[in-house]
Amino acid sequence: MSKSIAGPEIERLIQLLARVPGLGPRSARRAALHLIKKKEQLFAPLSAAMAEALDRVRVCSTCGNVDTSDPCTICTDPRREDGTIIVVEDVADLWALERAAAMNARYHVLGGTLSPLDGVGPDDLNIKGLVERVAAGGVSELILAVNATVEGQTTAHYITDQVSDLGIKVTRLAHGVPVGGELDYLDEGTLSAALKSRTTF
Amino acid sequence: MSKSIAGPEIERLIQLLARVPGLGPRSARRAALHLIKKKEQLFAPLSAAMAEALDRVRVCSTCGNVDTSDPCTICTDPRREDGTIIVVEDVADLWALERAAAMNARYHVLGGTLSPLDGVGPDDLNIKGLVERVAAGGVSELILAVNATVEGQTTAHYITDQVSDLGIKVTRLAHGVPVGGELDYLDEGTLSAALKSRTTF
Ligand SMILES: [Zn+2]
Ligand SMILES: [Zn+2]
Repeated sequence: MSKSIAGPEIERLIQLLARVPGLGPRSARRAALHLIKKKEQLFAPLSAAMAEALDRVRVCSTCGNVDTSDPCTICTDPRREDGTIIVVEDVADLWALERAAAMNARYHVLGGTLSPLDGVGPDDLNIKGLVERVAAGGVSELILAVNATVEGQTTAHYITDQVSDLGIKVTRLAHGVPVGGELDYLDEGTLSAALKSRTTF
Repeated sequence: MSKSIAGPEIERLIQLLARVPGLGPRSARRAALHLIKKKEQLFAPLSAAMAEALDRVRVCSTCGNVDTSDPCTICTDPRREDGTIIVVEDVADLWALERAAAMNARYHVLGGTLSPLDGVGPDDLNIKGLVERVAAGGVSELILAVNATVEGQTTAHYITDQVSDLGIKVTRLAHGVPVGGELDYLDEGTLSAALKSRTTF
């Protein structure tokens, strides 16, 4: 707002809300007004939940996941298989794989990908911790669930090198047609990979 | 998330963020992760700004605006003209008009429009307070800046009736072509109105 019309506290709230992904300056104003109108039903509980999460959130020192306990819920879950670690770039990927609920494994969050151009080297990622986990024993397979980008694949190769002496299986996600995906919207690389990895019907 | 993977505090934060206009379940997860990653730069200041705004926000007992003081910044601004009150449905409309910065008047927020079908009558809106402000004297013009909807116009007529004995001018916003608007995207009602209210070039 060009002039101050709603008190500095509300303007500051709008400015900070505008920096939340998914909101912008316009929707931040709308969000702030909605919160003010739903003061008891939404604003107060959200403010309390923020303070609580802010106070309690931790990065898991084992796997790099975020949680309110360290080690995290997944690392301490006795029903998970210890033998498989799924390696992801980001916590968002971990959450996405958990929603898919396809595996009951452990995870390791790298915190990014190798990117020499951006000055991101092995020491900037959580790779040393991964190698230590594998070296400690009990792990038979690393699933490299990194993005199918140049940086993701570079990172995958680097990790494969680092654990090559440790006698474990290293796998990666299959390429192919997304479930529900239409062929004519897919790039040629995906289509080639899907053809190459075709399965018996 | 189907299973609990990130502690109840983070899941509750995501659930509440998903109820903020502009965010949904998916973007709420993204927003929560972003906040956690930008803990010092964004999460902590946003949490503090929320608590502060929540604690200090008030509805102005004079005009219905929201602010951290009562009467609000606009009602207590000595540079505003007392003679003109711009009547709006919602605080969002007040903010929009302030951004336009076209008038230096006072405001009155109705808090909605008359809508018999939804059970919204005159007593559910801040109309009595408006009539009292006008009756108290010093006001020469009411600008009814309500939406150009059936409910908005019904409300405008009702307010005009209520103040008809008080000897003030009641005006409404001009209809016309939006600035930058393209004619072939406008409805016929707007085009007719724009033609009828044409001005000399
Ligand atoms: Zn963990
Ligand atoms: Zn006010």
